Amino acid sequence: MFSVTVRDHMMIAHSLRGEVFGPAQRLHGATYVVDATFRRASLDADGIVVDIGRAAQALHAVIAELGYRNLDDEADFAGTNTTTEALARVVADRLADRVRAGALGDAARSLDGLAVTLRESHVAWASYERPL
Amino acid sequence: MFSVTVRDHMMIAHSLRGEVFGPAQRLHGATYVVDATFRRASLDADGIVVDIGRAAQALHAVIAELGYRNLDDEADFAGTNTTTEALARVVADRLADRVRAGALGDAARSLDGLAVTLRESHVAWASYERPL
Amino acid sequence: MFSVTVRDHMMIAHSLRGEVFGPAQRLHGATYVVDATFRRASLDADGIVVDIGRAAQALHAVIAELGYRNLDDEADFAGTNTTTEALARVVADRLADRVRAGALGDAARSLDGLAVTLRESHVAWASYERPL
Amino acid sequence: MFSVTVRDHMMIAHSLRGEVFGPAQRLHGATYVVDATFRRASLDADGIVVDIGRAAQALHAVIAELGYRNLDDEADFAGTNTTTEALARVVADRLADRVRAGALGDAARSLDGLAVTLRESHVAWASYERPL
Amino acid sequence: MFSVTVRDHMMIAHSLRGEVFGPAQRLHGATYVVDATFRRASLDADGIVVDIGRAAQALHAVIAELGYRNLDDEADFAGTNTTTEALARVVADRLADRVRAGALGDAARSLDGLAVTLRESHVAWASYERPL
Amino acid sequence: MFSVTVRDHMMIAHSLRGEVFGPAQRLHGATYVVDATFRRASLDADGIVVDIGRAAQALHAVIAELGYRNLDDEADFAGTNTTTEALARVVADRLADRVRAGALGDAARSLDGLAVTLRESHVAWASYERPL
Repeated sequence: MFSVTVRDHMMIAHSLRGEVFGPAQRLHGATYVVDATFRRASLDADGIVVDIGRAAQALHAVIAELGYRNLDDEADFAGTNTTTEALARVVADRLADRVRAGALGDAARSLDGLAVTLRESHVAWASYERPL
Repeated sequence: MFSVTVRDHMMIAHSLRGEVFGPAQRLHGATYVVDATFRRASLDADGIVVDIGRAAQALHAVIAELGYRNLDDEADFAGTNTTTEALARVVADRLADRVRAGALGDAARSLDGLAVTLRESHVAWASYERPL
Repeated sequence: MFSVTVRDHMMIAHSLRGEVFGPAQRLHGATYVVDATFRRASLDADGIVVDIGRAAQALHAVIAELGYRNLDDEADFAGTNTTTEALARVVADRLADRVRAGALGDAARSLDGLAVTLRESHVAWASYERPL
Repeated sequence: MFSVTVRDHMMIAHSLRGEVFGPAQRLHGATYVVDATFRRASLDADGIVVDIGRAAQALHAVIAELGYRNLDDEADFAGTNTTTEALARVVADRLADRVRAGALGDAARSLDGLAVTLRESHVAWASYERPL
Repeated sequence: MFSVTVRDHMMIAHSLRGEVFGPAQRLHGATYVVDATFRRASLDADGIVVDIGRAAQALHAVIAELGYRNLDDEADFAGTNTTTEALARVVADRLADRVRAGALGDAARSLDGLAVTLRESHVAWASYERPL
Repeated sequence: MFSVTVRDHMMIAHSLRGEVFGPAQRLHGATYVVDATFRRASLDADGIVVDIGRAAQALHAVIAELGYRNLDDEADFAGTNTTTEALARVVADRLADRVRAGALGDAARSLDGLAVTLRESHVAWASYERPL
């Protein structure tokens, strides 16, 4: 199995609902360093998993829809806790939509899977992985 | 599949028995930067894999039992080589015990798995992963 | 010249005023990984620059006053842009106050200087350094 | 499942054929920071996955055959694109050959698998994993 | 004293002349992760050292002139060894030219200094610092 | 001013005397990731600060005298606390001796200074810098 990973980041504000979150129930924020991993069993005709330039652009487009925003005000997240793990899934699912829509090229439609990791600090991170 | 990871560290002394270890047969020591990863197929009602505060506390409690000690003098390790890979399993198994005992909350009892990585330097690390 | 550095982090929300900031004029947030460096020309009687436990506690206390907050709502920052470089100075100056007040012990009063670095992502950081 | 990883690096020149590569079609180069991960279900009699000294030597030997070279001139790669993902496989397959030839000792013949990651920058990397 | 740093990277091929370089006398290559640090004694009217967006663009422009090239073929480097330390100076001097030409804005003309670090691997890097 | 840095590591056991050290008064250990930085105002005839191969060998030789040992048993450290900051000085001073003895070549005798950083974990490190 092969994989390729690209890294980018986004900076958001949000608050979390539930006693379990302690002081993070207050409005605060985070930088998420975002790693998107694309997996496939064999390389395409160019000898790659995915066009790394297009993969980086697709990731950048997905996080540009989230970054520099207060997620508490986004209609998409009404009623959901925008935890690190939930946001990892949002990024992965939106990337998967772009792959299926052809944004990463035709060869990318035969990718096997996708994983997204959001690093919220030097001591904590969350991931979500899914098939494609 | 979702996962959440928390990082901490411990500093121990030990020696290793067996020619394969070369100079590490002498009494020496290590800082282990410890990453504990908790896995589950779906998020709980709060939108999380595990309460990250409790996860960090549980990891800290486990490594506090090992850190600032000469492991050669610990009864628990009599007759065992405290290699990085063996210690990764000790940390993972002790964390699993705490999860089952409820230290990470009731929701954590439905975690699917656990992985522990011990980084002994910038050029070497070991992991152990297990179901829960 | 000797130095000792301890690392911690804080998560805040804020917005920045001025066209130069582009989308960062909107309410968003950041994780700052904070490195506090203490400098002195010679070691104290224990062979240290500063009690690293107390240094870590002082840094943690300073950033606990800032973290998990929307800095736009903090009276201390009314009328100021809470840029990464400005916050590096706030952390350094507040740490210096604690050093002078004896929070790091008597020996720490003879520290020569202090530097604080705030890492806002994997590709950008800011520092402020000052004498003590 | 246990694993042990060792890190080394190599510096190569090459060019890539295909429009998808943009400016990387010109002769350029890369530092690859190489992580080789060895996996096995249970530890050997010494309490290890693999002799970490021998593992590091084997990895160093494999990458010494590639490093400080223009890969465009190497007969082994005639007609292939030496992409990061393709090189990850080359390193993994050559390490697997050494394992089977006994270079890592007899116990290493019962390793279950191998993964190799090549980090080409702080924002991109590729991996290949295989059974043994 | 304040500073702000931005990170980018470039991938080049080159060879080095002189016995001291051993196998690096052959044509090979490197990824340089490039950190550019801008220093000034006091913040400007916006509360910043430099417009970080413009700083990142200026750094990107400078390294785009070097990256994805065989430096042995570049007229600018005829007769010079393109060592990591020499390239750090090239990047710093070209950034200084851009600062003086106003590419980072008027306020940036009062910057006090500049430092550039080129990381060639996880175990080696070089820096050059200069006044402005 | 130019600088070049090389990284290596050592693993030691020790204990520290003094109440300020808390649990670190017990016999324990540490991995120190060691960065040695060599500084000079201008490059030598080969375009380098120092022969990086010889610099790495000299650093390796210095830390090989310390690593895989219990520093409490070393005559050189009788009556001294082997704190991270004190060990940074030991490594720097021993490297300086080697530079003066010619181990890094004749050109290295005109180096201006030396700095050594010992990273004891992901959250703490110490440095010592000196002229040459």
